Amino acid sequence: MTAIFPTPAADEDQRLLSPDELEAALRDIGARRYHNLHPFHRLLHDGKLNKDQVRAWALNRYYYQAMIPVKDAAVLARMQDAQLRRIWRQRIVDHDGDAPGDGGIERWLKLAEGVGFSRDYVLSTKGILSATKFSVEAYVHFVAEKPLLEAIASSLTEMFSPTIISERVAGMLKNYDFITKDTLAYFEKRLTQAPRDADFALEYVKQHATTPELQRKAMAALTFKCTVLWTQLDALYFAYVAPGMVPPEAWQPGEGLVAEKTTAPAGGKHGPFVGSDVPRLPRGVRLRFDDVREKHVLLAPERTFDLDDNAVAVLKLVDGKRSVGDIAGELAANYAADRSLIEADIGTMLAELAQKRVLER
Amino acid sequence: MTAIFPTPAADEDQRLLSPDELEAALRDIGARRYHNLHPFHRLLHDGKLNKDQVRAWALNRYYYQAMIPVKDAAVLARMQDAQLRRIWRQRIVDHDGDAPGDGGIERWLKLAEGVGFSRDYVLSTKGILSATKFSVEAYVHFVAEKPLLEAIASSLTEMFSPTIISERVAGMLKNYDFITKDTLAYFEKRLTQAPRDADFALEYVKQHATTPELQRKAMAALTFKCTVLWTQLDALYFAYVAPGMVPPEAWQPGEGLVAEKTTAPAGGKHGPFVGSDVPRLPRGVRLRFDDVREKHVLLAPERTFDLDDNAVAVLKLVDGKRSVGDIAGELAANYAADRSLIEADIGTMLAELAQKRVLER
Repeated sequence: MTAIFPTPAADEDQRLLSPDELEAALRDIGARRYHNLHPFHRLLHDGKLNKDQVRAWALNRYYYQAMIPVKDAAVLARMQDAQLRRIWRQRIVDHDGDAPGDGGIERWLKLAEGVGFSRDYVLSTKGILSATKFSVEAYVHFVAEKPLLEAIASSLTEMFSPTIISERVAGMLKNYDFITKDTLAYFEKRLTQAPRDADFALEYVKQHATTPELQRKAMAALTFKCTVLWTQLDALYFAYVAPGMVPPEAWQPGEGLVAEKTTAPAGGKHGPFVGSDVPRLPRGVRLRFDDVREKHVLLAPERTFDLDDNAVAVLKLVDGKRSVGDIAGELAANYAADRSLIEADIGTMLAELAQKRVLER
Repeated sequence: MTAIFPTPAADEDQRLLSPDELEAALRDIGARRYHNLHPFHRLLHDGKLNKDQVRAWALNRYYYQAMIPVKDAAVLARMQDAQLRRIWRQRIVDHDGDAPGDGGIERWLKLAEGVGFSRDYVLSTKGILSATKFSVEAYVHFVAEKPLLEAIASSLTEMFSPTIISERVAGMLKNYDFITKDTLAYFEKRLTQAPRDADFALEYVKQHATTPELQRKAMAALTFKCTVLWTQLDALYFAYVAPGMVPPEAWQPGEGLVAEKTTAPAGGKHGPFVGSDVPRLPRGVRLRFDDVREKHVLLAPERTFDLDDNAVAVLKLVDGKRSVGDIAGELAANYAADRSLIEADIGTMLAELAQKRVLER
């Protein structure tokens, strides 16, 4: 019987795969680990996300898109061969375009604007999850630090992107009334660019991974890249789906959007505060008494604002409940002054603080 | 009235803070952003986590501990001044110790072993969340790439660590019967080391942040470091608390532990499989038909195993439900062979696959 069930030839020492076997093994990594399998994408494509969750995805994914040419430049910087560089540089051209307003990053900005973001807010990268930044930066560092074969192999997730793109475009157009074909223009271009890029990278890897060890490293590089994509969706899910714990300073629904006229408050988003506006301190901003200097200051993340006594008197009454009218009323009583004059002064002062982003209405 | 409510002196252009004001501003960042405020830590300290959740914390935090001397070496490599280096190098000595078995990393390994992990599993860093790795690596890259002042300022979270350590040690000893004072020896040392390190770094920052811009950057560096810590807890919470979505290849409860004798299966964790054992393929391992070579192979992440016909016949019946006895019974019927002989052969073959980590019981 021992002859019937001998030890299989399996071994820790990987044998050399043929190029086709290597391709099959790489495709298998995609079949198991590509982010089309992530629950967040299933929700996105099936129309199960609300508009703010789609916005969170568009905003965070912008950071990834914006860093792709930086990543590709890091790969390019390691290529000793002009012919190789001529081919690879096309990726940078695709993303950056030939002029302002052109290219893949620009098309992603259009997508973010299409779901309601102000362009400047997206460009500032302020509300991006730190986990997104750390994942993307891990990718950039990976291609800068690993051997060229691994840097190229890590790009091979593009082999799998046509499937997810078709799924996504069809699903999003069908399920979200705020998504239009124009908004998704980014993906149309990628449907031809990604396979061209992936074909080249795959041939390169099949040709240059000539030992079992190099083949193992190429596979590990692709797995790593799948992880870079997966981890970004984990963070999105955590912050905006369940448990919905948005980390400090990450985007909160409502922030960074182009004002929708129907929901604008009485005094508008800009201009002086009026009596019915309810001022409040934004997250992270605090009125604090400075023991050393014996005066009040407004503490914002990485900034401190000196305040005069009048501003302190007003800010002490700012609690997110009192309206400007309420505050003016209380101060008018305390100072025996004219309420409507105080209200106008407060309105201007608060608008100036709001412009410095240490006050909201 | 305008004189009563003039524009406050607040301005985007930060004025120069006195050293004491700068310290107050840095401490305020800690008061708002240090990870003692994270819900995961509140659960940990209040005894609200189960043993596997505490294990996940210990395992992931090991990666951070293990990289601290690498981080400090990167800082050291940027110091031009011998006196500065003499002081900073003590951090590396503290973590690495003077001999194997000594130092902070070793004490953290003891903590991980104390909650049940096998030392080798922890050292392999296999089950660490990618989000943990990306956060920690972002920290290492930060200190390697930013000006020295910012690299040093990013270490200032140690100003806040004595509080969290006291809270943690008291809370964990009180709330978890599997935690002993010995297990937490790491923290006792840190109670004296951290304040010494923090005092030095704080003085350095107060002395060298001599412009508003440098002060702003020092504050931003500390905020960044708070984010590095916070993001790690977000990922732990996501994977092991709620929604409890463990990413592919991250640690799953039960993995990497020293076998507890009371729960060992019939045949033990090692040795041949016996009739009552139920074999199954670990996550990520698949039996696959290779079209090119027209034969079955076992595909594991980054490895492929050739199989002979007998192994294929057995593995086709491995479904996580059938026991070795069941499989032997079916094969004995098909091959008209002796069931007990087949069972013994299968038992040995499966044990060999298990040793290669492509099979579990």
